[in-house]
Amino acid sequence: MSADQVLDYMAGLGREARAASRVIARATTAVKNRALLATADAIEAAADSLIAANALDLQAGRDNGLDEAMIDRLAITPAGLQAMVEGLRQVAALPDPIGAIRDMKYLPSGIQVGRMRVPLGVIGIIYESRPNVTVEAASLCLKSGNACILRGGSESIHSNRAIADCIRQGLEAAGLPQQVVQVVETTDRAAVGALISMPEYVDVIVPRGGKGLIERISRDARVPVIKHLDGICHVYVDDRADLDKAEAITLNAKTHRYGVCNAMETLLVHQGVASVFLPRIAALYADKGVELRGCEQTRAILPQAVAATEEDWGTEYLAPILSIRVVADMDAAMEHINRYSSQHTESIVTEDFTRARRFLAEVDSSSVMVNASTRFADGFEYGLGAEIGISTDKLHARGPVGLEGLTSEKYVVYGDGHIRK
Amino acid sequence: MSADQVLDYMAGLGREARAASRVIARATTAVKNRALLATADAIEAAADSLIAANALDLQAGRDNGLDEAMIDRLAITPAGLQAMVEGLRQVAALPDPIGAIRDMKYLPSGIQVGRMRVPLGVIGIIYESRPNVTVEAASLCLKSGNACILRGGSESIHSNRAIADCIRQGLEAAGLPQQVVQVVETTDRAAVGALISMPEYVDVIVPRGGKGLIERISRDARVPVIKHLDGICHVYVDDRADLDKAEAITLNAKTHRYGVCNAMETLLVHQGVASVFLPRIAALYADKGVELRGCEQTRAILPQAVAATEEDWGTEYLAPILSIRVVADMDAAMEHINRYSSQHTESIVTEDFTRARRFLAEVDSSSVMVNASTRFADGFEYGLGAEIGISTDKLHARGPVGLEGLTSEKYVVYGDGHIRK
Repeated sequence: MSADQVLDYMAGLGREARAASRVIARATTAVKNRALLATADAIEAAADSLIAANALDLQAGRDNGLDEAMIDRLAITPAGLQAMVEGLRQVAALPDPIGAIRDMKYLPSGIQVGRMRVPLGVIGIIYESRPNVTVEAASLCLKSGNACILRGGSESIHSNRAIADCIRQGLEAAGLPQQVVQVVETTDRAAVGALISMPEYVDVIVPRGGKGLIERISRDARVPVIKHLDGICHVYVDDRADLDKAEAITLNAKTHRYGVCNAMETLLVHQGVASVFLPRIAALYADKGVELRGCEQTRAILPQAVAATEEDWGTEYLAPILSIRVVADMDAAMEHINRYSSQHTESIVTEDFTRARRFLAEVDSSSVMVNASTRFADGFEYGLGAEIGISTDKLHARGPVGLEGLTSEKYVVYGDGHIRK
Repeated sequence: MSADQVLDYMAGLGREARAASRVIARATTAVKNRALLATADAIEAAADSLIAANALDLQAGRDNGLDEAMIDRLAITPAGLQAMVEGLRQVAALPDPIGAIRDMKYLPSGIQVGRMRVPLGVIGIIYESRPNVTVEAASLCLKSGNACILRGGSESIHSNRAIADCIRQGLEAAGLPQQVVQVVETTDRAAVGALISMPEYVDVIVPRGGKGLIERISRDARVPVIKHLDGICHVYVDDRADLDKAEAITLNAKTHRYGVCNAMETLLVHQGVASVFLPRIAALYADKGVELRGCEQTRAILPQAVAATEEDWGTEYLAPILSIRVVADMDAAMEHINRYSSQHTESIVTEDFTRARRFLAEVDSSSVMVNASTRFADGFEYGLGAEIGISTDKLHARGPVGLEGLTSEKYVVYGDGHIRK
């Protein structure tokens, strides 16, 4: 396709999505659930052809020299396929957020005012490799009454087309137009540029992928973006911490999984407990093969730690590496967090009520915790039932974004011929 | 100042605002209220010098040939001054939104998760003429725990400086840093460009003023904007309407005030009642001097109406002009609204339960009403206690924006040494 043809094609998708968004916005809960469950059935029935389509992507990926991590994300295993199916059924089981009316109350003028939850309209999702995002994103948009346009990576185009077929079957079974969920069929990169520049057709963009992708999209988009950048998460071990809890939490926050945004990247320890706590936890990290990088005070206690540089404090390792800093007190810990945190998730370990309360109030991150592992910052763990991403922005959605983050509220007013005096 | 000096000056304000935002974010309700009440007292005490400063602006405005409407908006009358004072005391009396925790609940893992309301950080307000906005905006930002940078029009610079003095006294009386509320002291237009391009210092921009200003800022801003564009509001009179209610509502929605965004601009009437209702309401509009512009069917009933053009349906008159269209049924009315509405406020007049319910669900505007005048779409009328603007966007805040629109929520997690399995 030429650049103009890509623009035309994308505008066509946009127009269709806008029209379909009006239909899905007023679809009943039963109809939306029927589409989700029928999609699940279609995926189960099409298992063989889905895995065959995925094999084409895997082969092309290997031919193009994709690294093993990429190939791994790209692969649809039988277990992964079953997880997609389960995910669809779980989203069908979630309560429908749309149409809920809250806080309906009478005002002195006699009118009754409340707020009704409504879909955003059309959501553009831009993602890389993992084909299961196609199912996840489509199901969350559908349940929240939104149309969506999905633009996956070119490396997963065969898988995504096959999944899109199943979604179309699901929509058809429920009597919904197939334009409710549209998969961009061209791998032309200009399609992304077009998708993020059509405010008349697209209400919000959700990018899912590496930092580079998200930064590029946030910079260029002419549409609001629900974005998630770094997760530079901190745990602060206070001198009034229960050190058994501190040990469990700091071990879990670093080593439960390394390549995730809610893993701890920097450990802050109060100077009053550093000489007791650090050797204890360092032994456990050594067992796991975690490299330690420490400030001077840390290295006085743990000579095996490498000297941390200024750059370390601002780095999301996503790897078995941890930076450690000994701090004078909680205020110094919060100052460090203020300066280096990506405002994703921070946790304090303390038994002190007043400090816990201050930390919760004063640390400006999307999740703030007391005596819990940062690894809990997640839509499923928070009971949202699903997650389309974790927002480190402050406007609209902050923290794990579930169905509610894909909706808005409008005011509804009931009167009986009321006029303003 | 040179362009570079303006940039430096604005960056300085931004840095100071960011630092002050941390202080005001954790100020207690009592301290914030003290600042508001002390500002009210300071304005009362400084009445004479405020009016003298305003006289300088008025004189300059007349010298520069401002029209009477502009001069009118610029003027601080003794009654206007008293309204500022009352406004401050009302904001002090509002509940403090900050720190409220909702929906704290236990999850299967044993952690307890809830959401805490927090300030946005630093808010930039850009406005024209009316100096009372300085007080209103500052008071709402302060109560919601935000620092703010206020950039009023150059035509009101003396008034704004005098008001800023009073606010400084109020902040000082409460022991708060004066950088919590900063007024841009230069009238250089480059200051606006700088203010909307500092995401590191400013979290959100609220423009208040004409459509041109808001469009320009939305286009150029590198910071999220809470914006309010047109108010092309509709009232649809159904054939199952109580025509007495319809008469009261359509008269009020058009003629209560003309230059406001929640005035009705287009009246849609079901064909089944048009020949009865239109002559009735036309007589009342004639008394008020409202010019009518109608579709063909309207003009068959009201020959005095001018022929409406396509342009009329998309015009916010802000004047004693009304466009009228006769429609086949409610679906046709909603189709018209869908196409021409600015998604501000629409109202249906009907006694039919099912149609009312459909209109509420299917019309995609920030306020949707049944049997009430569109003029009610207002923060005070909705019981928000105050209003910083009306958002016609869908993300973050929609409809009248009060204190809550200047806040966000973060997740708080309580544990007892909990780790993720």
